Amino acid sequence: MSRLDSNIARMLAQRACLDRAVALVQELSGPVLELGLGNGRTYDHLRVRLPARDIFVFERQVASHPDCVPPPDRLILGDLRETLPAAYARFPQQAAFAHVDIATHDRTASEQLAVTLAPMLAALMRKGAIIVSELPMPVAHWRVLAAPPEAAGGRYHMYQAG
Amino acid sequence: MSRLDSNIARMLAQRACLDRAVALVQELSGPVLELGLGNGRTYDHLRVRLPARDIFVFERQVASHPDCVPPPDRLILGDLRETLPAAYARFPQQAAFAHVDIATHDRTASEQLAVTLAPMLAALMRKGAIIVSELPMPVAHWRVLAAPPEAAGGRYHMYQAG
Repeated sequence: MSRLDSNIARMLAQRACLDRAVALVQELSGPVLELGLGNGRTYDHLRVRLPARDIFVFERQVASHPDCVPPPDRLILGDLRETLPAAYARFPQQAAFAHVDIATHDRTASEQLAVTLAPMLAALMRKGAIIVSELPMPVAHWRVLAAPPEAAGGRYHMYQAG
Repeated sequence: MSRLDSNIARMLAQRACLDRAVALVQELSGPVLELGLGNGRTYDHLRVRLPARDIFVFERQVASHPDCVPPPDRLILGDLRETLPAAYARFPQQAAFAHVDIATHDRTASEQLAVTLAPMLAALMRKGAIIVSELPMPVAHWRVLAAPPEAAGGRYHMYQAG
């Protein structure tokens, strides 16, 4: 499998999970959280699919396409280990959907970060909320959802907050 | 269509064209030319699909994944407007396959560059060679090939050198 193959597979998995989550949260009010803006592709996808929803983006430093920069009042800059706990005062247990896109080339460090962030993120999610993450995020009261076929084999993970 | 959608469509078009070209050049000897290394995804795809073929990469400055850096004797660094004509002394009308991946965010400038480079590239390609390019490359003695379905609508272009 070439890097082109694996990149295509990753983006197909990502889109399939995001689209399924979008369908699942139609009846569930609350903001959407995007952890990691990156180049802004998935943020753009979410704002296209959920035009009426508030989308808050957590990012250390903006490096996206210029037309994918969130409005200032929807952009929360800083280290996630600080900004996520701080966001609890703003929207405790309110978010309906979170997409976690924090992986770097250091897979081990990324997995550790996901485990660290999981309980911080959990505090922001409402009951029934959907969480989509490339990395496993073990939270005791989150139920593992079956991923779409494009995301089979652990390529992407979906959870529902209990 | 979101940026995620269009990126997926672009990469599916790219892969479909590369794979079709790989099939078409099985019986045609000669090196492969990659114009633009970028992150190295398509270079990696070509070396996976054509393990026995010499692949020469033309790039201004290497910025790829570390494991997608071509060996020094297969990497031709510099401005394509200088390195392509210079390569004519090395392999005149010998290449069997070229992939042109030179587009930047400035579409107009990229299209102009493709038109400028087209005759320089043409001088390196042998009769029957396949050229795959995201941008149109008009060369009088190149025949336009029908692109695979994934590349319909002008998303990618395929030519055969006459």
